[in-house]
Amino acid sequence: MGIIVLGTVALDTVKTPFGKRKNMLGGSAAHFAMSARLFTQVHLVAVIGKDFPARHIDFLRRKGLNLASLAREKGESFRWDGEYKGDLNCAITNDTKLGVLSDFKPGLSKGQRKIKNIFLANIDPEVQNYLLCRMQSPRLVGLDSMNFWIKHKRKSLLRLLKKVNIYVANDQEARDLSGENNLVRAAGSLYKLGPQIVLIKKGEHGVLLYSGKSILALPAWPTGRVIDPTGAGDTFAGGFMGYLTKSKKINEASLKKAVSYGTIAASFNIEDFGLKRTSCLTLEDLERRLAKFRKCIGG
Amino acid sequence: MGIIVLGTVALDTVKTPFGKRKNMLGGSAAHFAMSARLFTQVHLVAVIGKDFPARHIDFLRRKGLNLASLAREKGESFRWDGEYKGDLNCAITNDTKLGVLSDFKPGLSKGQRKIKNIFLANIDPEVQNYLLCRMQSPRLVGLDSMNFWIKHKRKSLLRLLKKVNIYVANDQEARDLSGENNLVRAAGSLYKLGPQIVLIKKGEHGVLLYSGKSILALPAWPTGRVIDPTGAGDTFAGGFMGYLTKSKKINEASLKKAVSYGTIAASFNIEDFGLKRTSCLTLEDLERRLAKFRKCIGG
Repeated sequence: MGIIVLGTVALDTVKTPFGKRKNMLGGSAAHFAMSARLFTQVHLVAVIGKDFPARHIDFLRRKGLNLASLAREKGESFRWDGEYKGDLNCAITNDTKLGVLSDFKPGLSKGQRKIKNIFLANIDPEVQNYLLCRMQSPRLVGLDSMNFWIKHKRKSLLRLLKKVNIYVANDQEARDLSGENNLVRAAGSLYKLGPQIVLIKKGEHGVLLYSGKSILALPAWPTGRVIDPTGAGDTFAGGFMGYLTKSKKINEASLKKAVSYGTIAASFNIEDFGLKRTSCLTLEDLERRLAKFRKCIGG
Repeated sequence: MGIIVLGTVALDTVKTPFGKRKNMLGGSAAHFAMSARLFTQVHLVAVIGKDFPARHIDFLRRKGLNLASLAREKGESFRWDGEYKGDLNCAITNDTKLGVLSDFKPGLSKGQRKIKNIFLANIDPEVQNYLLCRMQSPRLVGLDSMNFWIKHKRKSLLRLLKKVNIYVANDQEARDLSGENNLVRAAGSLYKLGPQIVLIKKGEHGVLLYSGKSILALPAWPTGRVIDPTGAGDTFAGGFMGYLTKSKKINEASLKKAVSYGTIAASFNIEDFGLKRTSCLTLEDLERRLAKFRKCIGG
């Protein structure tokens, strides 16, 4: 059956201490797809403009993604121009051009409406809700958001949180939405808003997963090789949701594995610009690094 | 044989969102001792003033610490007055009174000079070096410092780093001393300065241990119950060094255990003001929570 990902497909211009790349293929849905595809069929739901290079579309197709609901509209593609300086954990946005994203109404084919698994990557919560309502009987619904929507569309986001199983937030978003500074308390508070699972991404510090009864803590893969962290959170979510889609079970054991796969997928993402490293990633690469990772986790 | 800890024994006034305590028994050596004593005999090397309450000394003695080198000098005891606001990871110092600490020359008894294990808790690196030189043949030497010494006594600290086995730093200190923002790189760079093991404490995010060949990452005990984090780093170091002193072996397995004991000891420290929780801690408490902790670490 696979998984639907709703999000952005973008043209990213990124500068880090290690170089600069212009108009790379990027966006939340593209990064998510690169890791989720290792576990399941990924259906991309996003919008691109008339200016979107054909080679990028070919690339996404070659990676095995279903592009039936990748809409092409008049107008310019969504573009993000960002930069990382000393602190590679923190992106500085130089420019954002919404283009066709500004009035995007996502659609699904008849077959896609029957899919049970969906990840609503970062995009306007009203658009996320619109797509979720199009689905016949979703079973596993993951949601990501960002500080902009927490501030400006809080009510829509709170309504949406009641409908999702998994809410994925970074540490600052979790603090902003919950009003709690301590992340374990923040997770508990977000859990009360609806989702059965709250996942807090802490970048180089790993993740926390809270599921009401149990809590799971995992450090990040310890590495000094960080070239471009753009999309690491989406790559994490792709590995996490992709594995859960494949395993079909949600229990403590499958959540532990899902968090580990997400962590390791993200560790590859940051090793090169854009999708360069994750687009040639294999499940064997993930497994190999996961085995090493297990050895370097204390406990 | 036991372990020597050189550091401060202080009168702490601490305010957190959960209350205020005046002139509590505190200081780096006292916090270290509360967890290290669970594994080995702890010899306290510190200075107190004439105003130091007798009940605090009785308390330290009742906890089984050797106080032969706890010097009592004319003048006032070292006092720290600090506060935590929203972010419990970050102490705000309101006032520091060095008192007798300002010209402290630590001493050791003849028997203590033969002890093989020592932790040089945060204090002037020249005082740390002075005591280290008094020891006959130290085998396991741990060192902590702080941003003030990194800035103002950098040369002394760099000289001292060549003589120690284990350097314990928090994330900001590691960045400041190494000039590296990425903590794995920072650990690698600090390792080149001399110590065989570099331990970076990241507060609520856990620890990183780097030993040249291998790296170990451990999250913190995930808790929303943080009352007073003062001394958590020293409590961690006490559990870590205490276990290594007891085990006598330094290899991957013992380091993993030591880091876990330190982590769990610190998780108790933050649950109440000052030494209140750790002073009644038992090894059984540590073991029980460690078993729970292992279940909530992914991987």
